[in-house]
Amino acid sequence: MIPNRALFGPGPSNVSQAVLDATAQPCIGHLDPVFGAMMEDVKDMLRQVFGTTNPVTFPMSAPASLAMESALVNLLEPGDTAIIGINGVFGGRMADIVDRAGAKAVKVEFEWGTPCDADAMAEAIRANPEAKVVGFVHAETSTGTRTDPAPICRAAREAGMLTIVDTVTGLVGSEVTVDDWGADVVYSGTQKCLSVPPGLAPITFSPRAIAAIEARKTRVQSWFCDLNLVLGYWSGDGARSYHHTAPVNAIYGLHAGLKDVLDEGLAPARARHEAAHQQLAQAMDNLGLKFLVAPENRLPQLNVFTLPEGMDEAGLRAKLLNQHDVEIGAGLGPLAGKVWRIGLMGENARPERVELLTNAIRTVIG
Amino acid sequence: MIPNRALFGPGPSNVSQAVLDATAQPCIGHLDPVFGAMMEDVKDMLRQVFGTTNPVTFPMSAPASLAMESALVNLLEPGDTAIIGINGVFGGRMADIVDRAGAKAVKVEFEWGTPCDADAMAEAIRANPEAKVVGFVHAETSTGTRTDPAPICRAAREAGMLTIVDTVTGLVGSEVTVDDWGADVVYSGTQKCLSVPPGLAPITFSPRAIAAIEARKTRVQSWFCDLNLVLGYWSGDGARSYHHTAPVNAIYGLHAGLKDVLDEGLAPARARHEAAHQQLAQAMDNLGLKFLVAPENRLPQLNVFTLPEGMDEAGLRAKLLNQHDVEIGAGLGPLAGKVWRIGLMGENARPERVELLTNAIRTVIG
Repeated sequence: MIPNRALFGPGPSNVSQAVLDATAQPCIGHLDPVFGAMMEDVKDMLRQVFGTTNPVTFPMSAPASLAMESALVNLLEPGDTAIIGINGVFGGRMADIVDRAGAKAVKVEFEWGTPCDADAMAEAIRANPEAKVVGFVHAETSTGTRTDPAPICRAAREAGMLTIVDTVTGLVGSEVTVDDWGADVVYSGTQKCLSVPPGLAPITFSPRAIAAIEARKTRVQSWFCDLNLVLGYWSGDGARSYHHTAPVNAIYGLHAGLKDVLDEGLAPARARHEAAHQQLAQAMDNLGLKFLVAPENRLPQLNVFTLPEGMDEAGLRAKLLNQHDVEIGAGLGPLAGKVWRIGLMGENARPERVELLTNAIRTVIG
Repeated sequence: MIPNRALFGPGPSNVSQAVLDATAQPCIGHLDPVFGAMMEDVKDMLRQVFGTTNPVTFPMSAPASLAMESALVNLLEPGDTAIIGINGVFGGRMADIVDRAGAKAVKVEFEWGTPCDADAMAEAIRANPEAKVVGFVHAETSTGTRTDPAPICRAAREAGMLTIVDTVTGLVGSEVTVDDWGADVVYSGTQKCLSVPPGLAPITFSPRAIAAIEARKTRVQSWFCDLNLVLGYWSGDGARSYHHTAPVNAIYGLHAGLKDVLDEGLAPARARHEAAHQQLAQAMDNLGLKFLVAPENRLPQLNVFTLPEGMDEAGLRAKLLNQHDVEIGAGLGPLAGKVWRIGLMGENARPERVELLTNAIRTVIG
C-alpha cells in the first residue's frame, strides 16, 4: 500500500529497515526501568553527535518546530529582546515566535542563499546591548545555505547574550560542535541526516542556558515546553516523575539510528555526504542547472538549484514522483516555483542513490 | 532487548503486532499525495470514533498534553476567563495552562475520585457570565472517574461559552459522542484504548470553536499550536502547505489502529472493556481490594484501587514488573503510594489478559 519512494526532498529521508524494525518492537511503559536505561543511552549518543558535554541533552517528544519554540520560550520573558538572523524561512519563523512570546525581535536580514554574516550579526549585537538572546539557523533548509555558528556565538557570549542555533538539517551532514561553537541551545530533527522517522527533536541546553531559565521571573508560557517540568522526566536522577507520555516506539527508532551513525563515525558520515554532494553537483552541472548558493556556503546534504524561467517544475516533480518514485523538494516562500531542493541525507548520501536520482532527473528533463 | 511487558498501567497499552508492523512501513514524504490520502482516511475515522461531523478533526503531531495546551491557547486570549472543573491531576493541569496563557482560571474543585458535578459547574457558569471557556476531564486518568460531559456542555452552551473536554483515557473505552454532548474542543491520545504507540493526539474542533479562533484579536501565543497555521497542512483542500513535518510512520500506526477499532465496532469494543472491568472487579474483590470510585462513576478502562495502610505497593509493583512482566500504575499527586491504577485498555480488555493480570497480582500479594 505504501510505495517505496526514494526521498530526495528536504526531509524526511529514507529510513533503513533496521531502524524501522526497531520502532516495531513491543511498546513498553514510559516509566519502565528498561526504557529509562534506553533514554540514558539516547542522551549519551545525542551528546556525541551534538559535540557537547551538556547534561541537558534529550529528544523532545515533538517535531523540530516545537524545539525551536521551546528554545525561545524558555529563554525569553515578555519584554526581552532577541536578535534574529534571517536568511530564509526558518530564521523568519524564529522571529515570529519571539513576537508571540511577548518579546522584541531585532531582525537582521540577509539575502536568501547567503549566510548570516558574522560581522553584521556582531554589529547588531553591539547596537542592541539589552538583547538577551541571539538566534539563527546553522543549516537553512529553505535555501541550502550554511552559516558558521562559531563567530556569531563568540560575539554573543562576549556581550553576555545566549545563543540559539537551529541545526535541523545540519546534524550529521555538517560538522556540529556545540561546545566548540559556544552555543547555548541547539536543536535538530530526526528525519534529516539521522534517517530516523519524523516526530522527535533532539535538543541540548548549556549550563548557562539552564541557569538563565532557573533565574526567570515569570513562568514559561508553554506548560508542555517548560524545561523545569520536562526535566523532571528526562533528567534521569533515579525516580523519573511523570510529565507527558514519551513516544516510546519513536525513541526505539532514534536509539537505533544514533547507534548506526556512531558506528559509522561522524567524520566518515560527513565525508559520505560531501562525496554524494560532489557527485550530484557534477551531474546537475552537466544538465545545466546552477546552484543557488556559492560553493563555500553550500550544505552537501541540501542542494538548491535555480530553475530556468518557464520550466514546468511542479509537473516535472510530479513525474519524478509518479513515474520514478523519486521525491525532490519544491521552493518555499519567495523561492516557490523557482528552485528545486534536493536532499542527500543520511541513508541517501550514497553513490548508487545519487545515480538513481540523477538518472531519473535526466529522464524527466529529457 | 525490549521485554514483552503486559501493560496494565494508565497507558501506554499493548500494541498489536499488526499496528507495530504498520509503523514499520517505508517512510514517505509528508507532502506525498499517497500520505495525503491516508491523512484524509485518518480524519474520517477519527470523526467516527469521536462521534462528530466536525470538519476540523485530525491527529496533532505531539502527545495529548500538547493537545490540552493547544485547545486552551487557541480559544483563550489574555484577560479571558475559563471555568475549569478539577477532580484530579489533569483538570489541575488545565488550570495551570490557563494561567500561563494570561487568562484567569475559575477553579471548581471536586473531591478526587468523584466526578465534576453538573450542578456545581452550572452554578459556576451562572456566577461567572464573563467566562469564555469551560474545561473539564471526561475520563480522569489520575482517579479512574467518569464525568458526564452532556449536562456541563449544555449549561455552557446556553451561557454562550465554549467547552473543552479531555477524553485522553475515554476514547473507545467509554462512549464518546462529541456532537451529542455539544462539546467544542475534544482531544485524546493514541496510547490508551486505541492501542497505538504514544506520540499523537487526536483532536476535534466544532465550527463554533473555529469561528471563535478566527475572531481572535491577538495571535495564538504558540506558533506550533496556532490552528490557523496547522490547518494549512491538515485541512486537505488540495494543495497542502508546509507547516511542520508530520510524523509519517506514527500516522501509519494510527491509521491501522483506527481501522481495527472500527472493524470491531465501537459498541462491541465498549462492551469488551466493560466485561474486562467486571472480571477484574470480581477478582480484586476476592483479594479484598476496594475501588476508589463509586460504581456509577467508574471507568471500565481505568480501575483505581485503594491500598491497605502499610502495604509495600512500590515493592509489589516492581515484583509484578520484574518477575511477571506485568506493569500496573502508581498513584499520582495526593494519591501517590495510596492507590494502584490498573488499565484495561484496548488490546488488554480481553478475558485472557485480565486472567494473566489477576494471576500475577494474586501471586505477588501472596
